[in-house]
Amino acid sequence: MKVVAVLYPDDNPDRHPDVAASTARGLDLGDWLSTQGHEFVATSDTGDELDKQLADAEIVVTTPFWPLYLGRERIENARQLKLVITAGIGSDHIDTDAATGHGITVAEVTNSNVVSVAEHNVLQILALVRNFVPAHQQVLDGRWDVADAAQEAHDLEGKTVGIVGLGAIGARTALRLKPFDVTMLYYANHRRSPADEATLGVRYARLDDLVAESDVICAALPLNPGSGALFDVDRLAAMKPGSWLVNTARGAIADADAVREACESGQLAGYAGDTWYPQPAPADHPWRHMPRHAMTIHYSGMTIEAQRRIVAGVHEILGAHLAGNPVPEDFVVATPDER
Amino acid sequence: MKVVAVLYPDDNPDRHPDVAASTARGLDLGDWLSTQGHEFVATSDTGDELDKQLADAEIVVTTPFWPLYLGRERIENARQLKLVITAGIGSDHIDTDAATGHGITVAEVTNSNVVSVAEHNVLQILALVRNFVPAHQQVLDGRWDVADAAQEAHDLEGKTVGIVGLGAIGARTALRLKPFDVTMLYYANHRRSPADEATLGVRYARLDDLVAESDVICAALPLNPGSGALFDVDRLAAMKPGSWLVNTARGAIADADAVREACESGQLAGYAGDTWYPQPAPADHPWRHMPRHAMTIHYSGMTIEAQRRIVAGVHEILGAHLAGNPVPEDFVVATPDER
Repeated sequence: MKVVAVLYPDDNPDRHPDVAASTARGLDLGDWLSTQGHEFVATSDTGDELDKQLADAEIVVTTPFWPLYLGRERIENARQLKLVITAGIGSDHIDTDAATGHGITVAEVTNSNVVSVAEHNVLQILALVRNFVPAHQQVLDGRWDVADAAQEAHDLEGKTVGIVGLGAIGARTALRLKPFDVTMLYYANHRRSPADEATLGVRYARLDDLVAESDVICAALPLNPGSGALFDVDRLAAMKPGSWLVNTARGAIADADAVREACESGQLAGYAGDTWYPQPAPADHPWRHMPRHAMTIHYSGMTIEAQRRIVAGVHEILGAHLAGNPVPEDFVVATPDER
Repeated sequence: MKVVAVLYPDDNPDRHPDVAASTARGLDLGDWLSTQGHEFVATSDTGDELDKQLADAEIVVTTPFWPLYLGRERIENARQLKLVITAGIGSDHIDTDAATGHGITVAEVTNSNVVSVAEHNVLQILALVRNFVPAHQQVLDGRWDVADAAQEAHDLEGKTVGIVGLGAIGARTALRLKPFDVTMLYYANHRRSPADEATLGVRYARLDDLVAESDVICAALPLNPGSGALFDVDRLAAMKPGSWLVNTARGAIADADAVREACESGQLAGYAGDTWYPQPAPADHPWRHMPRHAMTIHYSGMTIEAQRRIVAGVHEILGAHLAGNPVPEDFVVATPDER
């Protein structure tokens, strides 16, 4: 059986001994699989070389951080493929309809990143609202202009934070924001129970109301046909002038050029997040050099602790499959119809 | 009566309409005082020109962000001085013994910055632990090296955070960190009640134990003779290898060169804060260009909301004095012995 893992590269593995999810350590799968007589290939190639590897692979491991965009054509050419595992959360880089139509199960390591991304949400909200990046840049530039740093610096206290999507990440974000004495609104397809709402300190709102009333909006929903470019020109214009937008969910949930224009005009006081489209973000991606941003490359779900959870989860999913058992239900994103 | 305010300069006041605490708006004191027949001078000079102004001033307003170091000699030369007001919190730039010995009251705007600095503590703890600055710099540099960002990135969850000083800022910091599922220790001169400890989620520890056990240390105590260079070579060496130190309290609480060396060696995985010694920090201050830092210039207590509190507080203190009343007790730092 052949397992192909498409992972981010690591040019200096000696300097990154704790990184398990790059091609260098390959999620610690190599020895484990080879002692069982299986073939394992770890690569960061996502072009022609990879297609050759996929031709006879039964299992493909992918990551959201260095995504293999696995569309219908690739799936049809990978005739032995039975299982696609996302080493992380968010399988929008995979055409799940095409996959299941060809007898392929799609799984991901549910919950591996939820605390990590919730923490990143709080960090990036505070970074924007408190004007961290320019105040840090002044340090590097040898400046001490308090007025310039202060003009755009605010307390989070008393602000209205709107969370779009209140799943595992959104809920953990709310719980961490609650003691900041903010008003929290949320919009989600499914309304939470009153007990949940009280615990999290959130109040349900229609999306349009949330957008109009929030000082800070935090996107915490998956990318799907309903959420692509959710923050387009019109929705950004409907936000409060001078509000902040944090999107650690998926880059494609926001229109890249519209976000850049809103940051340039000041309609957005700032934009942050760590997801981009496409990934890796090209050097000329408009978000790299627009004003008022506090972006990071996509790594929030790649902390050392998250990697340990991901390694354990991928081993569990693979172990089940290799033993001839179904993938545990909580890891399943989509299964073939015939199952 | 003459009031002199020593405030940070503002080279572009037109671009900073919300900044009230620079020389440009002068805490909105100018019109208010002149209509009452008083003289008002706002300056950022802290040298000879200022000394001329101080010669006949009855009230001096200072700030921690652009401190006037008001030592004994200056106080003795300011023969009309009756009241020194810190527009903010922390009056360690004033020799309070010399002041009270000369019949001068020292006051500050108690509570004006406590939420602001508590938020900054959480921001800078998350920035260090999650390796924000290098991951943001990759964006600007056109890079996408997930392994390099991930190697130093951690979740805050599960870490031990030691808070040194549990006053108004330390307690608000603890309350905001509690839902991050951390173990919190604190050291303070006065132990809190069991009820307070439970509410804040903290456990009392001796300083040496806190230093030895914490992954993150947050300094939240005033600068006084007991806390100067509290984090010196020996105490930094006693911290866990690879731990993080955040100090928004006062720069002089940490030994500048020892911190730089600890960041260079990796004994500290990172240092952040926004207080320096001296201020403004010179362009060659060792913290500006040491590795692993997430410093900002001193502005955390200068958010637009904090400035409103500071303006209101300074007006209240001044109003009391001008009406011949004592400064309200909660603003008083030190009063002359004869009072």
